[in-house]
Amino acid sequence: MTTAAAIDLRSDTVTRPDERMRAAMAAAEVGDDVLDHDPTMRELEETVAERVGVDAALWVPSGSMGNLIALMIHLRRGDRFLAPRGAHVLGAELGTAAWLAGGMPDPLAAKPTPQELSAAIGGKGPYYTMRTSLLVLENTHNGAGGAVTQPDDHAKLVAVAKEAGLTVHLDGARLWNAAVALGLPPAALTVGADSVQVCLSKGLGAPVGSLVGGSVEFVAEARRVRKMLGGGIRQGGVLAAAGLVALSRIDDLAQDHANARALAEGLTEFGWQVDPPETNIVLAGVPDVEFALAGLARVGVLGTPMSGKVRFVTHRDVSAEQIRDALTRIHAVH
Amino acid sequence: MTTAAAIDLRSDTVTRPDERMRAAMAAAEVGDDVLDHDPTMRELEETVAERVGVDAALWVPSGSMGNLIALMIHLRRGDRFLAPRGAHVLGAELGTAAWLAGGMPDPLAAKPTPQELSAAIGGKGPYYTMRTSLLVLENTHNGAGGAVTQPDDHAKLVAVAKEAGLTVHLDGARLWNAAVALGLPPAALTVGADSVQVCLSKGLGAPVGSLVGGSVEFVAEARRVRKMLGGGIRQGGVLAAAGLVALSRIDDLAQDHANARALAEGLTEFGWQVDPPETNIVLAGVPDVEFALAGLARVGVLGTPMSGKVRFVTHRDVSAEQIRDALTRIHAVH
Amino acid sequence: MTTAAAIDLRSDTVTRPDERMRAAMAAAEVGDDVLDHDPTMRELEETVAERVGVDAALWVPSGSMGNLIALMIHLRRGDRFLAPRGAHVLGAELGTAAWLAGGMPDPLAAKPTPQELSAAIGGKGPYYTMRTSLLVLENTHNGAGGAVTQPDDHAKLVAVAKEAGLTVHLDGARLWNAAVALGLPPAALTVGADSVQVCLSKGLGAPVGSLVGGSVEFVAEARRVRKMLGGGIRQGGVLAAAGLVALSRIDDLAQDHANARALAEGLTEFGWQVDPPETNIVLAGVPDVEFALAGLARVGVLGTPMSGKVRFVTHRDVSAEQIRDALTRIHAVH
Amino acid sequence: MTTAAAIDLRSDTVTRPDERMRAAMAAAEVGDDVLDHDPTMRELEETVAERVGVDAALWVPSGSMGNLIALMIHLRRGDRFLAPRGAHVLGAELGTAAWLAGGMPDPLAAKPTPQELSAAIGGKGPYYTMRTSLLVLENTHNGAGGAVTQPDDHAKLVAVAKEAGLTVHLDGARLWNAAVALGLPPAALTVGADSVQVCLSKGLGAPVGSLVGGSVEFVAEARRVRKMLGGGIRQGGVLAAAGLVALSRIDDLAQDHANARALAEGLTEFGWQVDPPETNIVLAGVPDVEFALAGLARVGVLGTPMSGKVRFVTHRDVSAEQIRDALTRIHAVH
Repeated sequence: MTTAAAIDLRSDTVTRPDERMRAAMAAAEVGDDVLDHDPTMRELEETVAERVGVDAALWVPSGSMGNLIALMIHLRRGDRFLAPRGAHVLGAELGTAAWLAGGMPDPLAAKPTPQELSAAIGGKGPYYTMRTSLLVLENTHNGAGGAVTQPDDHAKLVAVAKEAGLTVHLDGARLWNAAVALGLPPAALTVGADSVQVCLSKGLGAPVGSLVGGSVEFVAEARRVRKMLGGGIRQGGVLAAAGLVALSRIDDLAQDHANARALAEGLTEFGWQVDPPETNIVLAGVPDVEFALAGLARVGVLGTPMSGKVRFVTHRDVSAEQIRDALTRIHAVH
Repeated sequence: MTTAAAIDLRSDTVTRPDERMRAAMAAAEVGDDVLDHDPTMRELEETVAERVGVDAALWVPSGSMGNLIALMIHLRRGDRFLAPRGAHVLGAELGTAAWLAGGMPDPLAAKPTPQELSAAIGGKGPYYTMRTSLLVLENTHNGAGGAVTQPDDHAKLVAVAKEAGLTVHLDGARLWNAAVALGLPPAALTVGADSVQVCLSKGLGAPVGSLVGGSVEFVAEARRVRKMLGGGIRQGGVLAAAGLVALSRIDDLAQDHANARALAEGLTEFGWQVDPPETNIVLAGVPDVEFALAGLARVGVLGTPMSGKVRFVTHRDVSAEQIRDALTRIHAVH
Repeated sequence: MTTAAAIDLRSDTVTRPDERMRAAMAAAEVGDDVLDHDPTMRELEETVAERVGVDAALWVPSGSMGNLIALMIHLRRGDRFLAPRGAHVLGAELGTAAWLAGGMPDPLAAKPTPQELSAAIGGKGPYYTMRTSLLVLENTHNGAGGAVTQPDDHAKLVAVAKEAGLTVHLDGARLWNAAVALGLPPAALTVGADSVQVCLSKGLGAPVGSLVGGSVEFVAEARRVRKMLGGGIRQGGVLAAAGLVALSRIDDLAQDHANARALAEGLTEFGWQVDPPETNIVLAGVPDVEFALAGLARVGVLGTPMSGKVRFVTHRDVSAEQIRDALTRIHAVH
Repeated sequence: MTTAAAIDLRSDTVTRPDERMRAAMAAAEVGDDVLDHDPTMRELEETVAERVGVDAALWVPSGSMGNLIALMIHLRRGDRFLAPRGAHVLGAELGTAAWLAGGMPDPLAAKPTPQELSAAIGGKGPYYTMRTSLLVLENTHNGAGGAVTQPDDHAKLVAVAKEAGLTVHLDGARLWNAAVALGLPPAALTVGADSVQVCLSKGLGAPVGSLVGGSVEFVAEARRVRKMLGGGIRQGGVLAAAGLVALSRIDDLAQDHANARALAEGLTEFGWQVDPPETNIVLAGVPDVEFALAGLARVGVLGTPMSGKVRFVTHRDVSAEQIRDALTRIHAVH
């Protein structure tokens, strides 16, 4: 078994641009996006804003930068913010929420109820107590196995947050997956959020790029913060063109979800502890995660550790047939 | 019922310097502690270092600054740190652990077991994962009702932390209370900690001042950070003299503990839900904390909200008789 | 010549509280200034606010913390601020203006003209250019040899700053000296400033303490930031009482100024290069500052290096006779 | 005169990828550069490291991020750093050197001598004084009109810095221009620097990308900091491929330099105050910069304000003929 033949289920970030996407990049109209506004970038930003249901949007090199910019804008130094346990902003952004955006994180349950949220927010105290000022949601929730938040549940959490004067940021790195799983437009899942981040470089297959959106004022400030962080680029149209192609492929995610279900069913048949996946992420409970990953790697099936389990992510560069192949390989060593 | 007659159980920080302490302040030998080293301050710092079992110690205007300096020294930007739920560094220092010391907090259980600590630390990941580098302990643990950590339990937690390469800071704002409750010298409770903070302005009755200690190198850097934060003072001997008097009164805390037990027993007789206090803090569960505090204030008994309960703190400015009086007042409105 | 007999002209911070001040500290009425408001502290804060001509004021443990709090409130991250070359906020506060208040300093001339200030502010640029948002003034200007800014010159600089939309902070650590030198009330020197910091622990002789003042809103926020930095203290009245005594002694600074002139005249007679002092600071140009300071120390006259010269600071603990003695000693080794 | 016909001399960042570059991007081999290492990215990083004379290099989305990462690694909070007046890190990076890297900037002369540098570094003071720990150089120096630093002058400054224990970072955004102007390999201009940043998206014409290099340890830490800032990208090979093409075009910069000389000579003939350009930047002194730029824009010649002058930057998308055209247009309105 050689590495060349590996079935890479570590993340949907490993997807590679295909010919159509590369052709679009090669043909992109470009400008200096720092000095003026690159035309293809502008088209991408306007398209995403409309799809996601925000007034304006800004391209950023990574979802981490998109989240970070939102937190930097929403938080004042020392503000407490809440996010579901396992959220990307809590565990996977190298603490920038704290040291760079100045926020003091406090984890909620992975799927908090409105009552739990309300209790966590608590009351206002005297001048020397922390202010709680931001709720971060994540849909789908990666750390919770790609779980989807229903529009109703989203709305109730947002209502509790707004009632208490909090701002709401939605980490929608995989919002497209949630929309496809629910059969709803993405904009139906962002209602009430003050800012939203979405990624093009995960299941949609663009090589690079995410967008963060909100009000026109929010995006104007975000553009400034992006420049601060060194994320302002010049002829970004070459990447934006890939992003526009990626946006045309949202419906393809349904296949990834079907593949994830097939993978989960197969693993369950082998006796693994697997919850039925809601989208493209399969979390499998095993006695020893490191040991299991090493064994899988030997037969050319790549996963990652997450939340104390083995995570597999299906994506457009792994076909239904390859999923069957992966199950065969796993069975062989199981 | 007038405010003048109020029995103030909001905190042991409300204690006022008495005549002996004021006389010591008036007579203190002083110098410029920024340029040179104020002689009385030096005496206080050396005395505390010895009592607490560290190589050197530094006076700071508040326990918050002492903890902050330790965290600033121990943490690199973005490092994850662990502390028991309800710890002062998590909830009562305005998020400075995050935005100023650069740390990403993650709460443990209020009384974590070594196994829970080990699981929370987790393994080392690739370059793009957070580093966990600090464990903060708090003894007594204010948010847990003044709970005492036994030397054995402390040692086990420290061992797990050290094994994983973590640094350990001990928030000993009320370490004196823990020592008196256990009948042990304070230094028996700091073993293995890289830094320790202790307060003189709580139960010991000094008007102002805490100390943070550790190795000689730690304190040299702490002196620099203190100057950065604006905590370097000039003729500090006037305050240090009060601190030296305070240190002579550690044994008096036994009376506060007895008063806390008496208060808790009385409240239990009234049907309140109260755990037996281990030191000078009584946490009482009530249906509506704000309502209860307002009712208590009307009869001149002052408490504060903490961890979803009513907190009473006994201290040297409230006598056993006043505790009986407080119970009478509470009974009248109960 | 023994160290005991040294004439300490390193700084007016070395002044020690006298009997009257110590008696006031011993008798001070106190309260918990974090939870409530210590009554003596309140009296000091109100008295200083009135003297300085601001709506409200807040006690802080050091002038550095007072300046830092003002900068933290006035600056947003990355804002450029201007201050005269040699200003305390530029060179003597360990870079907190940058890393903690988030400001990008740019030095003006030591005594900038309104034209120079206007040119330095410059115009507004596009979104990716720095915002200039704050002017810091210092009166007297320590690094410029205790130079006094006249009310007219102050007013012109403030007018240029305000016209360009800048906020103005006045570092008045030695504002009392400027007032005495000009024969004006301190409030005449703060017109138009959004915040002002004044020290009690320099020429006025209090052991510890400065105040930072401004609007009521500014001070409310300053109180919160002070708590963040660990500068909130409990029974601060013991120090505030010393501050109130210090405030009664402003006129005594005239003697320090006379002593400084006498010292400068004596040094000039010896052939030293000394500008006539405007207040209590004497800057003496010498070929080798370190060498000169070492020689002076051997005869028991202590100064410090500043702005490439030897600095002597006169103060209430050095009498006119001691200044004559110092000159005799210097003459002996010169 | 229409905008379409404008001759854009605002910056060499406006250069657009040509067909060859676009074809390379379309054909690039790619991988997930966060999880593994994108193969084309790796080739670019290794090629640049060799050209620039460092052990390793890391791709970043912008020169600003490259400089920022270097400063974040080299500076501890509050450290003072020195850079020539007009340096990019001082004026054009939105203050990140201060608020994010924690440094306190102090400007040197635009072309400092070793003596001036030595005086500016000064001596070591007591614990409460700022540490000076970093020298930033810029070659070519944009704010000084694209001035070139000779290897000898560079070596002397580096020697003074190292002698005093400082680290040296070289902002080589236009290092290629300096190398071409001097007829030397780029590596001859980086001797002794602890880190170097170079841009591919300026005169070399790549759409996006810079690199920051140094020791292997430096680059390992830089990779981590890049991830923190949100600059870690996935299939970066599409951009790296453009960068490799850009690197093959360094010699083309000689034409830009010739064009800059022609422009400067023409302007001088018109009576403008122009220093002979050393590379591709022409600074023209005019009575009113804003007025002049507006007039130029009306005839379709675009420049920018810099250092109180009008700046023109020649680049590969403006031919010698267009420079002549620009001069004709300018003459018409002059």
